[in-house]
Amino acid sequence: MAPYQYTVVVLVFSLLQSGVSGFPTNIRNPVCGYESCPATDPSMLNVHLVPHTHDDVGWLKTVDQYYYGDRNDIQHAGVQYILDSVVQELQKDPARRFIYVESAFFYRWWRQQDQATRRVVTQLVNEGRLEFINGGWCMSDEATTHYSAVIDQMTLGLRFLNDTFGACGRPRVAWHIDPFGHAREHASIFAQMGYDGFFFGRLDYQDKSRRMKAKELELLWRASESLSPPMADLFTGILPNGYNPPDGFCWDQSCSDAPIRDDPYLEDFNVDEMVRKFLETAHSQSKIYKTNHIIMTMGSDFQYENANLWYKNMDKLIRYVNGQQAAGSNVNVLYSTPSCYLQELHRANSTWALKTDDFFPYADDAHDFWTGYFTSRPALKRYERQSNSYLQTCNQLEVLGGPRSRSGPYGKGTSDTLRKAMAVAQHHDAVSGTEKQHVAYDYARRLASGWAYCKVLVRNSLAVLTGSDAPRSFCENLNISVCPLTESSKMFTMNVYNPLAHPVSWSVRLPVNGSAYSVADVQGKAVDSEVIPVPKATKALRGHRGWALNELVFQVEAPPLGYTTYSISLLQNAPPPPPPRPKAPLTIQNKFLKVTFDPATGLLSSLSNLETQQSIKLSQNFYWYNASAGNNEDSIQPSGAYIFRPNCSTPFIISKTAKIQSVQNGVVQEVRQMFSPWLSQVVRLYADSRELELEWTVGPVPIEDALGKEVITRLDTDINTSGYFYTDSNGREVLERRRDYRPTWDLKQSEPIAGNYYPINSRAYIKDKESQLTVVTDRSQGGSSIVDGSLEIMLHRRLLYDDVRGVGEPLNETSEAGGPEGLVVRGRLLLSLTPPDTAADSHRPLAQAQVLQPLLSFQEGPAPASARLEFSGLQAALPPAVHLLTVSQWDYDSVLLRLEHQYESRESKAYSQPVTVNLQKLFSTVEVMGVTEMSLGANQWKSEMSRLVWRPSADAAPQPKQPSDPSPWEITLNPMEIRTFLLRVRQS
Amino acid sequence: MAPYQYTVVVLVFSLLQSGVSGFPTNIRNPVCGYESCPATDPSMLNVHLVPHTHDDVGWLKTVDQYYYGDRNDIQHAGVQYILDSVVQELQKDPARRFIYVESAFFYRWWRQQDQATRRVVTQLVNEGRLEFINGGWCMSDEATTHYSAVIDQMTLGLRFLNDTFGACGRPRVAWHIDPFGHAREHASIFAQMGYDGFFFGRLDYQDKSRRMKAKELELLWRASESLSPPMADLFTGILPNGYNPPDGFCWDQSCSDAPIRDDPYLEDFNVDEMVRKFLETAHSQSKIYKTNHIIMTMGSDFQYENANLWYKNMDKLIRYVNGQQAAGSNVNVLYSTPSCYLQELHRANSTWALKTDDFFPYADDAHDFWTGYFTSRPALKRYERQSNSYLQTCNQLEVLGGPRSRSGPYGKGTSDTLRKAMAVAQHHDAVSGTEKQHVAYDYARRLASGWAYCKVLVRNSLAVLTGSDAPRSFCENLNISVCPLTESSKMFTMNVYNPLAHPVSWSVRLPVNGSAYSVADVQGKAVDSEVIPVPKATKALRGHRGWALNELVFQVEAPPLGYTTYSISLLQNAPPPPPPRPKAPLTIQNKFLKVTFDPATGLLSSLSNLETQQSIKLSQNFYWYNASAGNNEDSIQPSGAYIFRPNCSTPFIISKTAKIQSVQNGVVQEVRQMFSPWLSQVVRLYADSRELELEWTVGPVPIEDALGKEVITRLDTDINTSGYFYTDSNGREVLERRRDYRPTWDLKQSEPIAGNYYPINSRAYIKDKESQLTVVTDRSQGGSSIVDGSLEIMLHRRLLYDDVRGVGEPLNETSEAGGPEGLVVRGRLLLSLTPPDTAADSHRPLAQAQVLQPLLSFQEGPAPASARLEFSGLQAALPPAVHLLTVSQWDYDSVLLRLEHQYESRESKAYSQPVTVNLQKLFSTVEVMGVTEMSLGANQWKSEMSRLVWRPSADAAPQPKQPSDPSPWEITLNPMEIRTFLLRVRQS
Repeated sequence: MAPYQYTVVVLVFSLLQSGVSGFPTNIRNPVCGYESCPATDPSMLNVHLVPHTHDDVGWLKTVDQYYYGDRNDIQHAGVQYILDSVVQELQKDPARRFIYVESAFFYRWWRQQDQATRRVVTQLVNEGRLEFINGGWCMSDEATTHYSAVIDQMTLGLRFLNDTFGACGRPRVAWHIDPFGHAREHASIFAQMGYDGFFFGRLDYQDKSRRMKAKELELLWRASESLSPPMADLFTGILPNGYNPPDGFCWDQSCSDAPIRDDPYLEDFNVDEMVRKFLETAHSQSKIYKTNHIIMTMGSDFQYENANLWYKNMDKLIRYVNGQQAAGSNVNVLYSTPSCYLQELHRANSTWALKTDDFFPYADDAHDFWTGYFTSRPALKRYERQSNSYLQTCNQLEVLGGPRSRSGPYGKGTSDTLRKAMAVAQHHDAVSGTEKQHVAYDYARRLASGWAYCKVLVRNSLAVLTGSDAPRSFCENLNISVCPLTESSKMFTMNVYNPLAHPVSWSVRLPVNGSAYSVADVQGKAVDSEVIPVPKATKALRGHRGWALNELVFQVEAPPLGYTTYSISLLQNAPPPPPPRPKAPLTIQNKFLKVTFDPATGLLSSLSNLETQQSIKLSQNFYWYNASAGNNEDSIQPSGAYIFRPNCSTPFIISKTAKIQSVQNGVVQEVRQMFSPWLSQVVRLYADSRELELEWTVGPVPIEDALGKEVITRLDTDINTSGYFYTDSNGREVLERRRDYRPTWDLKQSEPIAGNYYPINSRAYIKDKESQLTVVTDRSQGGSSIVDGSLEIMLHRRLLYDDVRGVGEPLNETSEAGGPEGLVVRGRLLLSLTPPDTAADSHRPLAQAQVLQPLLSFQEGPAPASARLEFSGLQAALPPAVHLLTVSQWDYDSVLLRLEHQYESRESKAYSQPVTVNLQKLFSTVEVMGVTEMSLGANQWKSEMSRLVWRPSADAAPQPKQPSDPSPWEITLNPMEIRTFLLRVRQS
Repeated sequence: MAPYQYTVVVLVFSLLQSGVSGFPTNIRNPVCGYESCPATDPSMLNVHLVPHTHDDVGWLKTVDQYYYGDRNDIQHAGVQYILDSVVQELQKDPARRFIYVESAFFYRWWRQQDQATRRVVTQLVNEGRLEFINGGWCMSDEATTHYSAVIDQMTLGLRFLNDTFGACGRPRVAWHIDPFGHAREHASIFAQMGYDGFFFGRLDYQDKSRRMKAKELELLWRASESLSPPMADLFTGILPNGYNPPDGFCWDQSCSDAPIRDDPYLEDFNVDEMVRKFLETAHSQSKIYKTNHIIMTMGSDFQYENANLWYKNMDKLIRYVNGQQAAGSNVNVLYSTPSCYLQELHRANSTWALKTDDFFPYADDAHDFWTGYFTSRPALKRYERQSNSYLQTCNQLEVLGGPRSRSGPYGKGTSDTLRKAMAVAQHHDAVSGTEKQHVAYDYARRLASGWAYCKVLVRNSLAVLTGSDAPRSFCENLNISVCPLTESSKMFTMNVYNPLAHPVSWSVRLPVNGSAYSVADVQGKAVDSEVIPVPKATKALRGHRGWALNELVFQVEAPPLGYTTYSISLLQNAPPPPPPRPKAPLTIQNKFLKVTFDPATGLLSSLSNLETQQSIKLSQNFYWYNASAGNNEDSIQPSGAYIFRPNCSTPFIISKTAKIQSVQNGVVQEVRQMFSPWLSQVVRLYADSRELELEWTVGPVPIEDALGKEVITRLDTDINTSGYFYTDSNGREVLERRRDYRPTWDLKQSEPIAGNYYPINSRAYIKDKESQLTVVTDRSQGGSSIVDGSLEIMLHRRLLYDDVRGVGEPLNETSEAGGPEGLVVRGRLLLSLTPPDTAADSHRPLAQAQVLQPLLSFQEGPAPASARLEFSGLQAALPPAVHLLTVSQWDYDSVLLRLEHQYESRESKAYSQPVTVNLQKLFSTVEVMGVTEMSLGANQWKSEMSRLVWRPSADAAPQPKQPSDPSPWEITLNPMEIRTFLLRVRQS
């Protein structure tokens, strides 16, 4: 998207200015990209040395501590110095190469550089000597992230690179060398972002071993069952040594390998020995790869702080190893980059093994399954998911409210802080839960700070849209029934903003102290409401933070991409709410669902769908696996932040029975189950709901018995699953899972529980021909089906040992920093029972509504007469298959839009069809003046996106041609397709 | 000595070319030196930040491992990278400064640099931005080194700097920041080398505390009682934090202090806090110093490998701290160097406390006296001393034999290797014995390698001088009676080369298997000889290395700076030697001395000088102090390589009695004492000797009892010492010591033994009005006088614990690397009994003869008829007061000469007088064409040497004017004066 590319833009309207601000226009003929790659020798074994650093965007230290090199007592790492040093060393020799990956760090560094340094760096980038790889804000986690946030963080990083360096800053290779398992959806995203290839380091040790023998460490990953190849095809390379250098060749300051000692006048001259060892390493590595090119990652975590050590010794290595060619050596070693290596693989014109499943779970040894982090830090995982919803809402309201959103009656607001905080939170030691405690606090603090800036923006925007700038409060603690305004007010209004492109119906529970209220909608129509007592467990949980006795429960409806308003008034004379009734009745029911409980145990016993007339046996209870305590000395693996390892395959039951109470009225029916002082649940059925809500509260997990606990809930049904179950990939496509089985190799199962766990990002299900029980989650969790008919989800973990993967702390979260009491976590599972062939029709919108929840805000008193109480940013709701993924201000007159087909190609009779949207008729108040389609990462015009083509070894059937767009304004979405547009807009 | 200085040379003959080779002549107007110092502000407190690195020339790693950064598993340190990095960083800002100290490292680095880098570095040096400080090959140890080797190592380093950088490379400040105590002789040497000042870091904690209160951390050290002030006056500054940065301001990669985080957009902005803390530090430091200038050492061991970390943060510190001046701060912080700081102190025109004693012993806490290393590694200490003798001999023979010495019939020889090995061995973790075992082996290996190259040179030179190139062998193991040639030969010649400038008489003991030999001198005159059995202890010690049954003993005489030859032939028919006689007689005696033994114990009982008719009671025995085992956890100090801490003040006696045997004949009388299986001694009196030899053999020190042992010998006499005793300083001037007393502060003695130990480099004595018992040692050792009349010397140490000063190993030397058996060490003490006022007359030449021992070499068969069997390089022996300290080839036509007055000003009636030597009449075969006097370090013409003058607070009496030289050729030496000359020579 550099200026000289403008002439090739095909659309009819004037060119968008966005995305190129700051790009230095005086450099006209950069030779970056594949053209800048070093020469290789086809008659030789070419060894591509790839100097690189892996800079975690927070892990043992916070991202800013890493940037500055603070707290080196925890870990020696300072990214500012890494970039200083590498830029200096690259200037010394044009042959030297370096790749940089994490834009969150590069951004921090760049803004502190003077113009001279910026010019030097730009030159290096333009000559391909410094190359950006991956280029997202961070290297996201793959197991616990939601695709929406991943696309956002990639977009943020790629945009920074584009703005700063233009086309030469565009990464061509995706690079996920550290994440602990690899999601298919990530591969699909990378393909759609235009990456030519993907490299990673970690995969199951059995898988790796087989691939080494079969020379299948390099492969073609077909990452979608819906998208037509090669749309989601991604060439994937597995690196030989994780992301480390080969043994004996680590020259970083953090390593202790021998330098090349080539002064014959000093002791221990070792050139001959080093050359011999390197040739041996190269030859042995070439035996497991297909071509006469091999790659060596020369770097590791936070390396190159003193790049001279690396380059000085690599310069010598190259000189002395290539010097052997005169003596007949066939090894040619060179500085290179992953994209230059990739280009050589592509030139080899070979075919590559096809892969269609994913790389979960990851095990690095027989008892070392990295499946604990699917659930680690459940509160942080929820907060991250909720923050995504805040951010999308903030983005939307920034567009809908126009410039006054950013600077309005409530002051200066911005979405940037939350965007960056969310981007940082996608890091593979952030939302993954594998960071140190103080770093977890930092991530949460950043999100909270981001939300604070967004609040100002949201208030401003709603002031513009409603015409009222009265004080507006948000209640972020409704899950523990805390909201000062509703608790004290006798009359208030509630604004319900719906970030979805479809109307939403939503159940609201507001903490109140009155015993009866009148609730009216925007037309003044009374809305059914009930007041019920706050559950005991909630009172215990909120402590002194709130005093509400009751909850006011009612159902709201909100328009697409807009809001409506409800007025709530205390009714003085109403009778007090009835106290919850113990034990009876044992059925709760609405017009859609019927739920029964076992009177002997208080547990769920059946679930029926009254519309489809289907019913299953369903019992549910809570258990804990006893975490292996391990013994680091003789490498017996404990459970920890990363690793799940129960010391016994049978979990302990917390209580065979639950004490129950019930609440039943016209709005909601609840059965409140107490399993133990630290575990309770509310089984809740709203009057108009097609799904059953299980609101679980777990903690403080007791550890007085010195046993680490990994708490699960298990749903046992009579569904005939035959070992199969299903989990989603980053909240999008669903993968089939099979117990004790991997699609691509003959699994030797060594951990019957942990080895069958998979990440659940938004949903999991089990099914047979008749029934599908789908569970939609409110955050990422780990889960499995250990016996037929059963689905278990891990909810919370409290552990006493570190799992020896670097974090150096047991995962032992407490309610106060450093305090003794374990953290209490509350969450929701939504259950739906349907026939399998219509399941997606309900779980797709249900899951999106969980991800993008309505934002409630409150104003004291009655609504002003002049206020606009209802608004939709859309001319009409989008078709049911279409999800509005992104609406975000890009530049002063442009908006980034992403539309997504939210169904897979074969999952819904009703919706798995192409669907067309007219972009000009999209918004109600924003006029679309022009549109240009972009790559998914929004860093390239779609028309210019041209990816390397790779041939699978076994070719699949040719795909039918996809329908094309009816016109530039009318765009067609095929199943699971996401399309990204830059809109030139005008507020109308 | 840069080219543009040539015009000012005063002597009449053409200018010497030496010392300037390699100096870049195209840089004409460097502004180095004091002129290049940064501006300061007299109205402010000026804080001089001194960026520096302290690079041990071997310690935990070998010097070359340190240079290359190898074995970083032991310690992270790589000097090549330090210099790379600093040179790079200095170029970024002309305000930045760096000092470099150790030429051994800089030399290694410089020879690997390309011309471009060399030009850059030269420019930095010429602008005072990179300044050499100290500049010797290493930073020598002060307690265990001999002045001769110290001067040599300084000369080597300074010459390299001079040759490379000219005048701008000449250090103006001596810098001994790490040595563990400071010798007065070192200060005297530095003064005579032209240094303007001296800085160090370590001194007794009580001394430091008093000086802080009295503002006497900066002082004037009058370092000689003989040399006229200010000849040996040295301004001395004690650094505030050892050599480390102040707390909280260490920004090296090895530190964990917080960087300055000055980006307000990131977390933890800390500029205000850092500025506050720095100002507080500066103000508090200024309270203990006299002027409005203070110094902060910004660096430490092997720091600046990544100099960017340091400079980037210091740049910020300077900017932000000085930024406070606008707000009224009176602190001005700047990059500086020790010499720039020194210049400001000098400008202050103050007076400074006068110091005339030394800084031994060093204690860093009440029970932490660094007096163990005076003796640690006694075998290495001896080998180093012996190697000095080899080197001087090698140097002399290189001059005397001319160019064919370096390339002659035996191949290519050189003195360079040994010169460098000796220079490295002077390092304060080398001869000090405080290095790791593998490093100690490396030092020894280097010396052995140096000696091997010298052997070729010596053989070549002797071939030139004698006219015979027959094979010549050296016997380096005569101390354990091993010499293959003499053991097997029936007829051989022995060349005795005497490196002293006076004729020498020397007792020779050669291992032989015959029972009688004829020995003839160069005139064919028979020399008295005897064959005596090899002592049992020696047989045990040599193991399988030799098989000689007997020793052939005779006395030799050798000419000054020359050799003579003895012919030895086996007498077939001689009777076998008498077996040693047990127990009797109990007196040994020659014409000078009478020694009696106690018949009950076998111990010495008296010593009489038959010439002076004086006699003392003298008993001698061996003891061991039980080393404190310490307990590192609660900081109870153990004995270790550095620290001597007996856990009880009373040593254990090894045996109250000795089993004795005696040998008595016309050449030698011996009493052989066996104290235990691991401790024996030969008390030996040669026929013509005025001193009594005690040849001790200690080891393997047993440790089966798990007790560390520090073995001493103690001489108990009836001399009335009243707490006083005397030890030399680096083998030159003698200092008075007094038990439980320090001349400059009121000592609180907390370690009655270790706190009274002092280094003995060549001699110690006790005396009263009548008698002085002087002990001349063969290596550096620790010693004391714990009770009146007694003198004890520590001989050997075998310890089981590390003393927590970094070396990380117990000092547990074994006979084979890693083996279980302790190292056996053998050595000699020479005792002389004289009146005090004539003691120096004997101990001065005796000690020099121990330091520069005759070199024996052997050739099989009779001497060839044509051979020149006797030679002296001098026209005549020098006057008795004059010691020939240095004769060494400097360049192809120049020779470095040092002459030394070896008496103190008041110690000898006969010799403590000025003495004149005619340089033109010095050598017999080398014609002196010209002579220029130089500074002691030989890096400056003496005529140009101009030192800063400092005023003591209490002025001493004005000194009488020293006599001047009668003529440029005739130079006068005053007591203790060393004069250094560069001679232009021609072989005649």
